[in-house]
Amino acid sequence: MGEFDLIDRYFKRPAAQAVLGVGDDCALWAPRAGMQLALSTDMLVEGRHFLSTVSPEALGHKALAVNLSDLAACGAKPCAFLLSLALPRVDENWLAGFSKGLWTLADQFHCDLIGGDTTQGPLNLNITVMGEVPAGQALLRSGAQVGDDIYVSGHLGDARVALEVFRGNLSVPTPVFEAARLRMERPTPRVALGQALRGLATSAADISDGLLGDLSHILKASHVGAVLEAARLMHLLACGEELALPMQDQLRWILTGGDDYELVFTAPAALREQVTQAGVLAQTPVTCIGHITNGSGLTLLDTEGQPLAHDFVSFDHFA
Amino acid sequence: MGEFDLIDRYFKRPAAQAVLGVGDDCALWAPRAGMQLALSTDMLVEGRHFLSTVSPEALGHKALAVNLSDLAACGAKPCAFLLSLALPRVDENWLAGFSKGLWTLADQFHCDLIGGDTTQGPLNLNITVMGEVPAGQALLRSGAQVGDDIYVSGHLGDARVALEVFRGNLSVPTPVFEAARLRMERPTPRVALGQALRGLATSAADISDGLLGDLSHILKASHVGAVLEAARLMHLLACGEELALPMQDQLRWILTGGDDYELVFTAPAALREQVTQAGVLAQTPVTCIGHITNGSGLTLLDTEGQPLAHDFVSFDHFA
Repeated sequence: MGEFDLIDRYFKRPAAQAVLGVGDDCALWAPRAGMQLALSTDMLVEGRHFLSTVSPEALGHKALAVNLSDLAACGAKPCAFLLSLALPRVDENWLAGFSKGLWTLADQFHCDLIGGDTTQGPLNLNITVMGEVPAGQALLRSGAQVGDDIYVSGHLGDARVALEVFRGNLSVPTPVFEAARLRMERPTPRVALGQALRGLATSAADISDGLLGDLSHILKASHVGAVLEAARLMHLLACGEELALPMQDQLRWILTGGDDYELVFTAPAALREQVTQAGVLAQTPVTCIGHITNGSGLTLLDTEGQPLAHDFVSFDHFA
Repeated sequence: MGEFDLIDRYFKRPAAQAVLGVGDDCALWAPRAGMQLALSTDMLVEGRHFLSTVSPEALGHKALAVNLSDLAACGAKPCAFLLSLALPRVDENWLAGFSKGLWTLADQFHCDLIGGDTTQGPLNLNITVMGEVPAGQALLRSGAQVGDDIYVSGHLGDARVALEVFRGNLSVPTPVFEAARLRMERPTPRVALGQALRGLATSAADISDGLLGDLSHILKASHVGAVLEAARLMHLLACGEELALPMQDQLRWILTGGDDYELVFTAPAALREQVTQAGVLAQTPVTCIGHITNGSGLTLLDTEGQPLAHDFVSFDHFA
């Protein structure tokens, strides 16, 4: 099967919203009046963003999900995406599975595949996603204010538990592993929550490299510090209760696990009710984990309210 | 050097036109009223799109140039791009050269780098480019009409001559090789010509896989056929006169060489003057090479006007 047959068979569908989709030199998009476009791109490489054991369907899901998560973090509504694929060879089973996972998630968010590129090479998946947000309403990393509450959505650290099992560093009961594996391989982009937080959150980021690392981007961009409370963090590891693990290990994965694709965001304390409502509306749990302070440091308080020494570091692709 | 230092040092500059550039979860772009956005993405892999011998600076140029060429083909003005890089390791010399080549071309076309991703992995470069075109004025592949002239810009086949020298299949004088190598490693995207052809050309495509292959996309999308005249094609190989090569070989490279990044386009015969003017305005040679016919075939006429048997095929990444 040649390059163009491959595109026709697996990656070409009429685009619902685009002026022109896959098949010309460019796709064409007519922006709606009053809307700004949010754009982001993520590249996935085997061994770094996914294991060779992952099913192609899960990989199709994840490649798009991590990009939608960036749109969620700025409160944008997904519109369209472009897909670049480097494949070692044409494997129709792989392509059928991958495209199925991709289309299923794309349909869920009414996000059109409008362009792409395929080539032969070491497996590499790159998606560029485009969303829209009313002008001036995008959630940025730079708006956190002293006194704001700090929240996270959903659960943290479970994807890392699955990774540690895959690496042979941890053994857990099968049902726990399967649940954690779903978190690693099929992350849920918090798209509805992101949009519900427009006008409420003062800042937001998605958690891909670990809570500490991604929160630190907010702190740096907003020129503020933060206090986090371990007591509020502890129950964020969904599989935590079923694992007889030292609290320190659980906390480490919650704070630095990576691959969570939850949102970390800040909002004025006066808007607690509305933030709770936004979570309900988006059917997404939100948990207050601390607050924004003056200065630039990040302090972690133990369950007694005492500062906890920590040497946690977040994920760096070149560290 | 970590991932974020790398981005700060080599890939972060204030974006001139974007609402928000590199450094948040998404970039933000405010579309201008009456404009449609043209989007395209191209992935470059070592050994397939470039040789390991290429200088990083030339590679930075080429990675963006092949994307700008897609914008040129639809008559769009370049605005912004997103860059994804998988790098085997952090090599500051490489990054300095690559970013220099990239910025130089980006500046030439006032095209902002507004986002991206970096990760560790087998060398892979993906750029997604965005341009703007007045609503309804984009050049598509589907508009060619029976009787239209067929044109190409610039020169064809020289990049392939350089590739054949690199492969050891051909030996040419050094100055000829250096000129051909420039065509291979530093293609010139025909951005000005593409915009000048708005309202004149009935269809257009860029020539990345070879003239025959890319013209065939136009024929298929427009449901028409074509006649090409060898006599008009022969002088398109810039280094042709200096090479004592069989005419058949020259013609093969002109028709199927690949990596040319010229435009192939069609325009009504009544607009010949204006097309010539557009070429002058864009400081880009344009050559009429044939015309559009009824039916679906592509006929190549020899210098006597007789149909020439040909078995030329165009480049396919998976063939």
